[in-house]
Amino acid sequence: MERSKQPAIDSLKMHPFYRGKVQVLPRCTIRDFNDFGIWYSPGVAAPCLDIKENPQKVYEHTSKWNYVAVVSDGTRVLGLGNIGPEAGLPVMEGKALLFKYLGGVDAFPMCVGPGMDAEQIIQLVKWIQPTFGGINLEDIQKPKCFKVLDTLRKDPDVKIPVWHDDQQGTACVTLAGMLNAIKIVGKKKQDIHIVFNGVGSSNFAIQRLLGLAGFDIRKSLFVDSKGILYKEREDLISPENYKHEIVQQTNPEQLQGDCGTALKGADVLISLSKPGPGVIKKEWISKMADDSIVFVCANPVPEIFPWDAKEAGAKVIATGRSDFPNQVNNSIGFPGIFRGTLDVRASTITDEMCIAAAEELAAFAYDKGITEDYIVPTMQDTDIFIREAVAVGQKAIEQNIARIHLTRDEAEITARNLIKLSQDQTKMLMKKKYIPQYE
Amino acid sequence: MERSKQPAIDSLKMHPFYRGKVQVLPRCTIRDFNDFGIWYSPGVAAPCLDIKENPQKVYEHTSKWNYVAVVSDGTRVLGLGNIGPEAGLPVMEGKALLFKYLGGVDAFPMCVGPGMDAEQIIQLVKWIQPTFGGINLEDIQKPKCFKVLDTLRKDPDVKIPVWHDDQQGTACVTLAGMLNAIKIVGKKKQDIHIVFNGVGSSNFAIQRLLGLAGFDIRKSLFVDSKGILYKEREDLISPENYKHEIVQQTNPEQLQGDCGTALKGADVLISLSKPGPGVIKKEWISKMADDSIVFVCANPVPEIFPWDAKEAGAKVIATGRSDFPNQVNNSIGFPGIFRGTLDVRASTITDEMCIAAAEELAAFAYDKGITEDYIVPTMQDTDIFIREAVAVGQKAIEQNIARIHLTRDEAEITARNLIKLSQDQTKMLMKKKYIPQYE
Repeated sequence: MERSKQPAIDSLKMHPFYRGKVQVLPRCTIRDFNDFGIWYSPGVAAPCLDIKENPQKVYEHTSKWNYVAVVSDGTRVLGLGNIGPEAGLPVMEGKALLFKYLGGVDAFPMCVGPGMDAEQIIQLVKWIQPTFGGINLEDIQKPKCFKVLDTLRKDPDVKIPVWHDDQQGTACVTLAGMLNAIKIVGKKKQDIHIVFNGVGSSNFAIQRLLGLAGFDIRKSLFVDSKGILYKEREDLISPENYKHEIVQQTNPEQLQGDCGTALKGADVLISLSKPGPGVIKKEWISKMADDSIVFVCANPVPEIFPWDAKEAGAKVIATGRSDFPNQVNNSIGFPGIFRGTLDVRASTITDEMCIAAAEELAAFAYDKGITEDYIVPTMQDTDIFIREAVAVGQKAIEQNIARIHLTRDEAEITARNLIKLSQDQTKMLMKKKYIPQYE
Repeated sequence: MERSKQPAIDSLKMHPFYRGKVQVLPRCTIRDFNDFGIWYSPGVAAPCLDIKENPQKVYEHTSKWNYVAVVSDGTRVLGLGNIGPEAGLPVMEGKALLFKYLGGVDAFPMCVGPGMDAEQIIQLVKWIQPTFGGINLEDIQKPKCFKVLDTLRKDPDVKIPVWHDDQQGTACVTLAGMLNAIKIVGKKKQDIHIVFNGVGSSNFAIQRLLGLAGFDIRKSLFVDSKGILYKEREDLISPENYKHEIVQQTNPEQLQGDCGTALKGADVLISLSKPGPGVIKKEWISKMADDSIVFVCANPVPEIFPWDAKEAGAKVIATGRSDFPNQVNNSIGFPGIFRGTLDVRASTITDEMCIAAAEELAAFAYDKGITEDYIVPTMQDTDIFIREAVAVGQKAIEQNIARIHLTRDEAEITARNLIKLSQDQTKMLMKKKYIPQYE
């Protein structure tokens, strides 16, 4: 319990020490000042004109091939709610840091707003599209985020992949964890009964991806602050409510009640609701089926602490925190997924690419030897990002949405080199004290 | 002549070798993977909440204090015209490179569009404002750029400095050059007769700043592709034409004719029109007053080559090219101006700050010893950026628009350290071959 407060204490001291988590540095040589005549006026006119003639050459003459914008309006940051774009900036900078260190991707934090509606965020992304190889949407409140993502993914004018990490990234890593968790407890995809607590963008997307990956989600239950979702519940009758769609596809017996009721006899709890502890009660867990699987992934504090869930009888417990076992955290997903997507220049990131990444994550942990406390790789398993990149890129090629065809070997070498370069540069900057040590 | 083609040849080879000119790298330590729990979830929630409570703390917990967006819609790139946002990206990346290497500023290239009108660019800048400490507008066509800059500078909702380098930056460096050029030829601000060739955003802004700095611009002449601007010229009668304003303030004798006519007896030509050579004729130069001053700053090729202007009798000749003497190039302005502005957290960049920068540029060259071929510092004079930063920051403090008060000494140390850090990091990345040598 005490230990769980340490990161916040350190964070509040270390952020003002470094005053930011990423910086811009040259990628090209500057042998002397004459080189600025090559990189800027007058020499730069030549590549500009070359791109004008052949638009795809922007991927050769600039870093567009590796630039990603991390776009957030700060309306749903971690579990903190609508704190606004400025207050969300530390998170987006952190994301940019992970993008580069783990995936070799050059990501720009881009907090926007305040007060933008879905159409405005869509417009903004379309306007900045020329600069970027991909867009990572982040921490945008529901149901706005659904419309933003769905519209941008379908828009034929959007030529680059758009990803909402809270939906797709979370779904991908959760699927990976589930694939191994059911192996640990010896249950089958099609047999298990799942309860989703929280009807945010993440659970929405998780349920969808689990369904596509072969889980039987028709018998699952969704629970929100008002209890179990069922067809006749007054607020869910109108199709205007985005939750209306869910009750058409779940809860076939039209069960009513609270989360405790929903969990009776359930095999799996996937909770992404509000920060705990105390949101999920021990007595609820104790009434789940034997060998239950509990994913309590609210940030920054899980809905129930893992040791309490364990005591109540859960077999496999996962959270969103890096300081607990089984971190079902997007950080093991997006860096590799974007690496693979950018390297084959895929035009979008399909559900199948997402599932391929999840299966690779699961296989990686399985190969290393899964246990109750190790169902997904951790960030320390650095090779996972390379394997994900390969799996995602090959799937894109198979689906005919890649503009660059790499063999598995080529894809692996490309990803490995870029990630290694990023980490080597960072270590050098630290070793030479350009990034000072925190005292 | 041959030599002037070399940068373009090198540029076309070297751009695809490096595939981009800037990258994102960590600014903070990553001692081990546990640090991600400080920089990202769960620890990052603490600085987020701290900013929510105290919005100004975004300058402590993030790099907003040093982030600048280089925003362009690619509608007027160098002298190449409207080539679009993708084709403009090599220029904006080059600008970001100069920002960091010369000024220690973390600048993101941001090419946007296509087809955005003034209102849309204004909206975009306001939306991305939360992330940045300042905005550098670049290569946006006229008259759109006037409206964008003027509106954003006046908007009380815009809390960060917005700068249009083609207007303000060019005006600043041109003023610096003029201050020393008139010393070389022994003429006085209030006596000289100036001809402006080209009525783009740069000349518009130059004329304005020269006027504020004490030059008598009422007797100056403007020339465009139709000849000298005068009140009764059919296209200039309507106040709708942005050039209408100019003829109210210049050409008191209502002279008519071409650029050659305008130049007869003139002391100074400031030409920022279209790429040469051949745009300004030798015989026109030869009819100027004795000891004439010729600024021919079109990019990528000046309106007349310096050796031809010299032969025709010009005494001091300046161009926009780094491979000729007297480069009147924005690159010696914006890095220092932004450094100084960001370091005192000024809310805007006033004309007076601009003039202070120009005077510092001129004084620097004067102190080193001005000649016909050295009227402005070059990029090699790296101390100039520090001196500019100090001058600009102190002026902002004097004008009560700075949120941080630094003494001259503090300002100098701050700027020097940040610029040195940037250059040292770059040199180390090159030395260790993370930035490979171009073969």
